[in-house]
Amino acid sequence: MTKRKLETCFSPALYEAEGHTNSIVVIIDILRASSAICTAFANGAVSIIPVPEVAEARDYKSKGYLVAAERNGFVLDFADFGNSPFNFTKEKVSGKTIVFSTTNGTGIIKLASSAFMTVIGSFLNIGALTKWLIKQDKDVLLLCAGWKKRFNIEDTVCAGAIADILMRSNRYTTNCDSTSASIDLWSLASPDLPGYIEKAAQRTRLRDKNLDDCIKFCLTPDFTDKIPVMKNGVLVADI
Amino acid sequence: MTKRKLETCFSPALYEAEGHTNSIVVIIDILRASSAICTAFANGAVSIIPVPEVAEARDYKSKGYLVAAERNGFVLDFADFGNSPFNFTKEKVSGKTIVFSTTNGTGIIKLASSAFMTVIGSFLNIGALTKWLIKQDKDVLLLCAGWKKRFNIEDTVCAGAIADILMRSNRYTTNCDSTSASIDLWSLASPDLPGYIEKAAQRTRLRDKNLDDCIKFCLTPDFTDKIPVMKNGVLVADI
Repeated sequence: MTKRKLETCFSPALYEAEGHTNSIVVIIDILRASSAICTAFANGAVSIIPVPEVAEARDYKSKGYLVAAERNGFVLDFADFGNSPFNFTKEKVSGKTIVFSTTNGTGIIKLASSAFMTVIGSFLNIGALTKWLIKQDKDVLLLCAGWKKRFNIEDTVCAGAIADILMRSNRYTTNCDSTSASIDLWSLASPDLPGYIEKAAQRTRLRDKNLDDCIKFCLTPDFTDKIPVMKNGVLVADI
Repeated sequence: MTKRKLETCFSPALYEAEGHTNSIVVIIDILRASSAICTAFANGAVSIIPVPEVAEARDYKSKGYLVAAERNGFVLDFADFGNSPFNFTKEKVSGKTIVFSTTNGTGIIKLASSAFMTVIGSFLNIGALTKWLIKQDKDVLLLCAGWKKRFNIEDTVCAGAIADILMRSNRYTTNCDSTSASIDLWSLASPDLPGYIEKAAQRTRLRDKNLDDCIKFCLTPDFTDKIPVMKNGVLVADI
């Protein structure tokens, strides 16, 4: 069986769309957008409409949609809630369509729209996601959201954890320095993941805004087996 | 004493010039441009004129300059030699001005031209460079050349080695995930640096072109105490 190519991209600013039209792109923004999206589907959300612009999110709200929207960690005034995974409870989201707009995450989903397929990854769905990826038998690009287009530790370590599982399956090949580095950083982080994430700049940013209560949860492996997949501009759960 | 800010940038595509007008930018492109430049000054070169465009390099050649120019590892037909450090021997470069144009390195020097100062870093001058940086008492940005704007292992590990020394001096502070990650990757690489660099994609690229003979040399610490500094568009040795 031909091995599939595995690559990692540390920032949307480094994403080369033309190289991935035949790849599955896994978007990783674990603090907090991709963790929140996985939690929403775990708790029964039907679909999520990602919108990059605030004005668009506001428009959806006026049409009666449930809207999760924040900028720089702060909930926008018209929104129902922000992007802490703890907001996406069964009571609030089960059976619902949610409009979702965050600082980083949703713009990246649009960026990757020319890929063969776009899915959402986090520690929360890592086991199911990696099994699902292997089953698809396609090239994979792990796309880290980073922070304001910069490299960040937490998404890189999650990419490394995913890459580590994929490479161990013996179904992928990589000649990508970002993939090697992320696996190495994961090897350093994995013995004490919360301790390692302490040094992430985003950890400090969230703490300064009292938004760090969900970090431990976001580092939990296998909370759900849902794979959020982009179909016709909307995220739905593949499983 | 106020601590100075230390940051690291993994790719020219992530460089934010406006944030570094008051910083010393250290350009790191160890396989092979920044190693070659350090070697040239160690062997008595008077100055190096970096030119990003092939046409400009050709023009200099027609004016009688010594020209080092390559693209993708191959020496350009009109050039005296390419950018292997082994070309920059005392016999060839002592007392000379060299025009230098490479795939990655020289374009980045232009990119960083709005910084307070631009210098060239590599393992070959790491001890002298870090002492010199501490003495300047300025914010520092370590700018990795990467490969075709992508992240690469070898420049990141060298940035980590430099950052590790600077942070241990207790004169710098960092809240930059790239710096933390590069120091961690250096900690993994340092026990066997040539072994670690084996996995770098550029290692494979150079081997495929039989250009890998200089890699071990490029990983040698403290071959020279010269600090190539950009002054009025030309590199000269500060020490």
